[in-house]
Amino acid sequence: MLPKALLDAIDALGRLPGVGPRTAERYAYFLFRTNPTVSETISDALKGLHSGLKSCPKTFALIDSDKSVSEFYDDPARDRTSVLVVEEPLDIYAIEATKQYSGTYHVLGGAVSPIDGITPDQLHIKELISRIAEDCVREVIIATNPSVEGESTALLLQKLLAEKYPDLKITRLARGLPLGVDLSYADQITLSAALSNRTSL
Amino acid sequence: MLPKALLDAIDALGRLPGVGPRTAERYAYFLFRTNPTVSETISDALKGLHSGLKSCPKTFALIDSDKSVSEFYDDPARDRTSVLVVEEPLDIYAIEATKQYSGTYHVLGGAVSPIDGITPDQLHIKELISRIAEDCVREVIIATNPSVEGESTALLLQKLLAEKYPDLKITRLARGLPLGVDLSYADQITLSAALSNRTSL
Repeated sequence: MLPKALLDAIDALGRLPGVGPRTAERYAYFLFRTNPTVSETISDALKGLHSGLKSCPKTFALIDSDKSVSEFYDDPARDRTSVLVVEEPLDIYAIEATKQYSGTYHVLGGAVSPIDGITPDQLHIKELISRIAEDCVREVIIATNPSVEGESTALLLQKLLAEKYPDLKITRLARGLPLGVDLSYADQITLSAALSNRTSL
Repeated sequence: MLPKALLDAIDALGRLPGVGPRTAERYAYFLFRTNPTVSETISDALKGLHSGLKSCPKTFALIDSDKSVSEFYDDPARDRTSVLVVEEPLDIYAIEATKQYSGTYHVLGGAVSPIDGITPDQLHIKELISRIAEDCVREVIIATNPSVEGESTALLLQKLLAEKYPDLKITRLARGLPLGVDLSYADQITLSAALSNRTSL
């Protein structure tokens, strides 16, 4: 019943994550009403997305497809003996925004999750283990998400790394109260962690 | 810092209505991770959106660009003497889904809204007025949204139409309780309308 061009756009936009038919309809109708350059810009950007991007073979960060290795790895100002391990490529930019870290990164590509069928061998753990010897890594900072999957991935990594490299320093991001959260709203686990990791003033 | 192809996709997707930088990032990263055919499908659909769609010159419904007039107008089963007036083209499909209406439609293209700078002359009111004479319309059903803008547009239309065509029947969609809403949660205006428009059992 709907005109084909509109139906096609609604169907296509409905494949974005978390976008249902109503939202897709809203997006499509908005794009039809607004200046045609907007849909052209989106169309062109999506066309170039896969050809313009690839994974760094060392860190598995996202890089421009004309580069061979991530800037987080080949920049001489980066300390290769420190590796911060994250689940997803975009997590790197959250850490970079703190301007507190000058080591390199390693993207696992997810977290171990039996429910979603993600097993340890689907993550870039093997590559992490070989990097540690190659780059004489002295510290691995595990920065997986504070979720069930992230925690179990962290424990697994800790076990695998400690077995293979007994002298390696393995740390993880501190657990504690986030800025601006009222004490009475903090969950039990966060509060316990904040208490046992308390720092002297 | 982010690879250019990803930045471009995030910027472009961030132009969709209600999509902020975080959601755009999520969409772009999802599209990069998933099968490339998905971003191609979206890209192609958006490219064809403007070339494949146009407004019907009679009803202002959206039509395939190779058609001259909307199927809601040229279908002989449609009763042209009844015109249901809506704000936006997609409202038509909500009415169609009831399978209760076999007249034609007229899309205003919005509602009068001084705040958004939408004046009556930007809406397709003139075209509605001429259709009434051309098609010997006997009833106009006003189905603008039950919002401040929709209500004032309905009142304006009623005034303009009644002036020009004193014999025209002008109705509007009933106000009352929607299905499944608890009486105690209904707002005052809806409840007043439901009470004064009560029907006999």
